[in-house]
Amino acid sequence: MGADFDTERARIEQRLDDICSSYLRDLAAPIRDAVEYGLKSPGKRLRPLLLLFAYKAAGGARDATMLACAPEVIHAYSLMHDDLPCMDDDDMRRGRPAVHKVYGSRTAILAGVMMIPLAARVVRDSTRAMSMSEDASMRVLDTLLDAGGASGMIGGQLRDLAGEGLSLPLDELEAIHSAKTGALIVGSLRMGALAAGADANRVAALEHYGRSVGLAFQIMDDVLDVTSTTTAMGKTAGRDAVLRKSTYPALLGVDGARRRAHALIEDGLNSLAEHNLLTQELSQVANFMVTRTS
Amino acid sequence: MGADFDTERARIEQRLDDICSSYLRDLAAPIRDAVEYGLKSPGKRLRPLLLLFAYKAAGGARDATMLACAPEVIHAYSLMHDDLPCMDDDDMRRGRPAVHKVYGSRTAILAGVMMIPLAARVVRDSTRAMSMSEDASMRVLDTLLDAGGASGMIGGQLRDLAGEGLSLPLDELEAIHSAKTGALIVGSLRMGALAAGADANRVAALEHYGRSVGLAFQIMDDVLDVTSTTTAMGKTAGRDAVLRKSTYPALLGVDGARRRAHALIEDGLNSLAEHNLLTQELSQVANFMVTRTS
Repeated sequence: MGADFDTERARIEQRLDDICSSYLRDLAAPIRDAVEYGLKSPGKRLRPLLLLFAYKAAGGARDATMLACAPEVIHAYSLMHDDLPCMDDDDMRRGRPAVHKVYGSRTAILAGVMMIPLAARVVRDSTRAMSMSEDASMRVLDTLLDAGGASGMIGGQLRDLAGEGLSLPLDELEAIHSAKTGALIVGSLRMGALAAGADANRVAALEHYGRSVGLAFQIMDDVLDVTSTTTAMGKTAGRDAVLRKSTYPALLGVDGARRRAHALIEDGLNSLAEHNLLTQELSQVANFMVTRTS
Repeated sequence: MGADFDTERARIEQRLDDICSSYLRDLAAPIRDAVEYGLKSPGKRLRPLLLLFAYKAAGGARDATMLACAPEVIHAYSLMHDDLPCMDDDDMRRGRPAVHKVYGSRTAILAGVMMIPLAARVVRDSTRAMSMSEDASMRVLDTLLDAGGASGMIGGQLRDLAGEGLSLPLDELEAIHSAKTGALIVGSLRMGALAAGADANRVAALEHYGRSVGLAFQIMDDVLDVTSTTTAMGKTAGRDAVLRKSTYPALLGVDGARRRAHALIEDGLNSLAEHNLLTQELSQVANFMVTRTS
């Protein structure tokens, strides 16, 4: 997304700092440090940006930056657990040693687990500060918990691990990615839409966009795993091949995978346009998905 | 608690079955099985009973059994993670192989994590079914998330692990147990009190009782670890000595530890009596703490 969203991202980083300084004070030192290390590790902040842009597209007028950090907390916990030796067993993440390499598996597990109630607390406090009704606040929280819970990321992670070494058909691969990566991306858009008080049709349109963008993101992740270097990726390149995971380039070829990503983006943007939600920001994020190089 | 609470416990077991059949359907099979194995493993159901009895003592008149299961879900997840090889590394739990021995560490971690949003979902749905206001429902949920989160169990677990092999003074040992075991016990009582609409003083009195009962429970756990057998305990007896953990019998002697537990129970019951909350049920649970043999 280059320099396009620098202002928004600076505000998000500031809020992530606020979360570390105000919510982690009472924690035992290694857990506090591990949470902060995971949360403040450099990232695209895609989920907060999507939540913010959905909120604005749906007519939200308050500052939703703190709320937008909640899905990033869940995302950071999921990366922490993904990298564990008994999961993907990856030593590098975002250009730095993974949390379990720095703090040990024990602390990485505990720190990850405590980030779920932490994210819930961020939603509670930020929706209150935005003067949202208890009912709306709860719907936003339910969305976060659903996305981070059983039906969402965790189910996808398990199926992903179960698929190692297997050759999966395209529909199964898409189902895995929809759950593992897509659930929280769709959840972020839904949270933004609900916080802005969008009606059911507009919530659905933003979710549709989220499914398309999330899948395109994952496809390009697979493509970059093949075409990029470890330095540019900030994590170990070629890892999918080592783990013998099914990937889009393996199924469709690199060009076919790129085409699939482009088609998804177009579909997502059409869904927004139909409901008068196509802002420049949401369009830019979508295009970034298929043009990014890291 | 012997046969005293058989009726209540049968209802709780029924609700735990309901949770398994209605909330776990969409999960991948190994996670679903692991959650069900952990949740339905035989237990005293102490936390649900305490929630129910606090609710009734504070004047609650609806059926709170489903709500009462929420802290048991959190408790079951914590046992699942406690037993992991990188945590306490225990192979037995409640007389059966630990979850990670049956399903592997990977599934045990994922299943445990998904039980946090599951418990939140149970609170949301059950408080709605009890026609509680959104505001009261949220206070109950906040209590559960706080107890299961950073300031509560997870912080205690880390300090407990950090204390292995060290000789801890009594106040540090009590701080650890207050956080690790006590947080969810106190949280269960607070949830029951809030669900019944108790005022701040009565909530505080039930929490006070909870701290006393929770600590007495832990003291007797340490005592039983010394005096009981693996069969009676349903988990590996003498484990604390193997892990060189600081325990109450080590600090106070077996008789001194028992006396401390009795004094705590008396203090907790006095707190209830002062606020007209001393029901037969809460008294029986407290006495069970110091008379139990497993």
